[in-house]
Amino acid sequence: MEENGKKPSTEAEAEERWQFGPNKAVEVAGGRSIRGTLNKIIACVEETGPRPMIPLGHGDPSVFPSFRTTSIAEDAIVEAVRSAKYNNYSLTNGVLTARLAIAEYLSKDLPYQLSPDDVFVTAGCAQAIEIVITALARPDANILLPRPGFPLYEARCTFNHLEMRHFDLIPEKGWEVDLDQVEKLADENTVAIVLINPNNPCGSVLKYQHMEEIAKTAKKLGIMVVTDEVYDHLTFGSNPFVPMGALGDIVPVLTLGSISKRWVVPGWRLGWIVTTDPKHILRKTKFVDSIRSYLDITTDPATFIQGAVPQIIKNTKDDFFNNIIHVLRDTAEICYNKIKDIKCITCPHKPEASMFVMVKLNISYLENISDDVDFCSKLAKEESVIVLPGSALDMKNWLRITFAAEPTSLVVGLERLESFCKRHEKVEQISP
Amino acid sequence: MEENGKKPSTEAEAEERWQFGPNKAVEVAGGRSIRGTLNKIIACVEETGPRPMIPLGHGDPSVFPSFRTTSIAEDAIVEAVRSAKYNNYSLTNGVLTARLAIAEYLSKDLPYQLSPDDVFVTAGCAQAIEIVITALARPDANILLPRPGFPLYEARCTFNHLEMRHFDLIPEKGWEVDLDQVEKLADENTVAIVLINPNNPCGSVLKYQHMEEIAKTAKKLGIMVVTDEVYDHLTFGSNPFVPMGALGDIVPVLTLGSISKRWVVPGWRLGWIVTTDPKHILRKTKFVDSIRSYLDITTDPATFIQGAVPQIIKNTKDDFFNNIIHVLRDTAEICYNKIKDIKCITCPHKPEASMFVMVKLNISYLENISDDVDFCSKLAKEESVIVLPGSALDMKNWLRITFAAEPTSLVVGLERLESFCKRHEKVEQISP
Ligand SMILES: Cc1ncc(COP(=O)(O)O)c(C=O)c1O
Ligand SMILES: Cc1ncc(COP(=O)(O)O)c(C=O)c1O
Repeated sequence: MEENGKKPSTEAEAEERWQFGPNKAVEVAGGRSIRGTLNKIIACVEETGPRPMIPLGHGDPSVFPSFRTTSIAEDAIVEAVRSAKYNNYSLTNGVLTARLAIAEYLSKDLPYQLSPDDVFVTAGCAQAIEIVITALARPDANILLPRPGFPLYEARCTFNHLEMRHFDLIPEKGWEVDLDQVEKLADENTVAIVLINPNNPCGSVLKYQHMEEIAKTAKKLGIMVVTDEVYDHLTFGSNPFVPMGALGDIVPVLTLGSISKRWVVPGWRLGWIVTTDPKHILRKTKFVDSIRSYLDITTDPATFIQGAVPQIIKNTKDDFFNNIIHVLRDTAEICYNKIKDIKCITCPHKPEASMFVMVKLNISYLENISDDVDFCSKLAKEESVIVLPGSALDMKNWLRITFAAEPTSLVVGLERLESFCKRHEKVEQISP
Repeated sequence: MEENGKKPSTEAEAEERWQFGPNKAVEVAGGRSIRGTLNKIIACVEETGPRPMIPLGHGDPSVFPSFRTTSIAEDAIVEAVRSAKYNNYSLTNGVLTARLAIAEYLSKDLPYQLSPDDVFVTAGCAQAIEIVITALARPDANILLPRPGFPLYEARCTFNHLEMRHFDLIPEKGWEVDLDQVEKLADENTVAIVLINPNNPCGSVLKYQHMEEIAKTAKKLGIMVVTDEVYDHLTFGSNPFVPMGALGDIVPVLTLGSISKRWVVPGWRLGWIVTTDPKHILRKTKFVDSIRSYLDITTDPATFIQGAVPQIIKNTKDDFFNNIIHVLRDTAEICYNKIKDIKCITCPHKPEASMFVMVKLNISYLENISDDVDFCSKLAKEESVIVLPGSALDMKNWLRITFAAEPTSLVVGLERLESFCKRHEKVEQISP
């Protein structure tokens, strides 16, 4: 900000005493975000470098031509704006027609029918996470979170003083939940277990039988299942996606989702919290009332985007979805094959879903690279390629690589990754 | 939700023990919202009544033909969506072109130039309030809030455990701030004073000289000024709107705003937090870092709506703004004149800004009406007219009436209000 004319006297300023300042608690919570970590890695890129930066660090392929959303979704937005019927504030739980459409859309994959009252429209799945964690954060409560996971859960738990207990996903078992550990971690103050399915960052998808085991364990423990299905339907291996809500008669399930990933429009900020709970336990225990209360004091998704949801869902052609899956299958394959050629990186499980893969970094193969953060920082500096260090997900010396990118860019990015690794390889290798 | 087939055994259900439930703290915070109060009043309306409900309870005239937004704003949205350049996640502080446009827009009324780094784009002014209150809520801190005010401040302070101290706006002095009281309330833990200007619920606007006094008092106390200017430029009396940021060289000012009111598009959810602080005190004290941290873990306004902001601001014609002001001046006049005819209601200050007027209810003139909530409930039931009870704003036996409505509806609504009052008048009046 530049002042017109007057220059502030620095002496007078020094005399001033201000009572406000930074808020430590907020900064600690914010420090857990992926955004924060990636910004630091991106800052390492040489600005004068001749080569364009290749972003394989976050899950947003919308800028790439192969991932352009369908014009049908754009049409729906245009029609909603032009109608001038959606310039007003929306209701607390969202526009009725949007809730109806989302209920119908999700019911297709469930053995029972959702009602619009099961649906709370949110500003993306991120706001769904914020609202659910807030509502769960009673004093003394604790929650079970997956490791690796999605750090917004950790950030919101930190902010809301909700105690976190982490259970592991087991790479050797296709990133299945370690259920023995879950049982050991839970106690009488545990309120929920969080699943991310299809999985970010592992690129895996839960098998039905394992889901049943999880549901039964949760029921035994008396806790709800919060299932983050923001990558729903983005599977391209042999395991199909089954929504956790299908097991809602075993245990109450809260399903979080959005149009961000399947329609490749993360900037549209349209998501949902849905009670997939045919026995109405979430309603009877009055948990749902707390969601409603929090919605009364938080912002909403844009009303006209809500107004467009029924058309977006109804009119989008299977061709569009199939094409996205096709591209993701190809890029996952490209990524998996290239990683096989890189000595210091191993991939425990071939990606079959979402937009990411978790790979293990063998630091002992590398010269002058101390850990995953150092690896990613130097990779950014030397090759202008961005990859997320596993440390951001509490997985030191792992990497999360996004394969959801334009295939040509992905190939170049992975080649740069490979030559970076080769260049930093130890000449005398430690025997494996 | 209806189950297909299987009926849950109620016996088995009774055995189930669930560890989650409602969250008292969230419900207390949510209970302070205007939405909550209005929903209760609206529930009193006789659904089978022959007459349409007339909503004079909240500030959203966008559904009325006289308040339709300009097609230029719609065009900007359509162009942004069609460009497919804004489907991606936005940056933490917002799309650069939007921040530039907002900085320029606000600088027109300031004696210095804002930079895009002063601007944080938010999902409406509501999210701006959420973020600022969160960042201010350090342990032991307290904040000065106006009474009457906008209950979202109270709700977010309650949620964030930020101690509130209320200072009065003085009706007899055109709702000026009681500055003596402000000085008495503040102590070494006070971090900020909140102003709403132009004012909701009073329909008043601060005079420049009084603003200077406030700025000097805040400086003396070592606190920042948070100015909610969501109704900026919506003035139609003799006092012009001057942004508090114009006094930013006396005291650091945080300006909150949005396009919701001036463009009559509250459903678009596009607002801002702006540091109007030519001495960079908010940056030097690192308060701004906390805003940034919180933005990293909260949802954003839709990217394409941000992308449309430069065109919305640049292309909107003065005719549109002038017409809205013209309608508001008329409706405020209609409202003021009708209230003069109603014995049990007095208006201490003719509305000259925003969309509301605060009026005093003389309960002693009425039969069988116990207080403002009872008044509003019975008015809703008998006349299908919605008005906000002052109690929601901590002003018992006052009413907040919205005049921002289609003039024809407003006239009918006020006539029904008048006949309601007449019908409930005490036959033998207490001498005044
Ligand atoms: C697991 C997971 N949940 C939630 C989100 C947020 O989704 P949205 O863009 O709909 O807010 C993401 C985004 O990357 C994610 O990976
Ligand atoms: C004083 C005040 N601040 C903030 C808001 C919220 O504004 P927005 O719709 O931009 O979130 C309102 C809405 O009525 C208001 O009256």
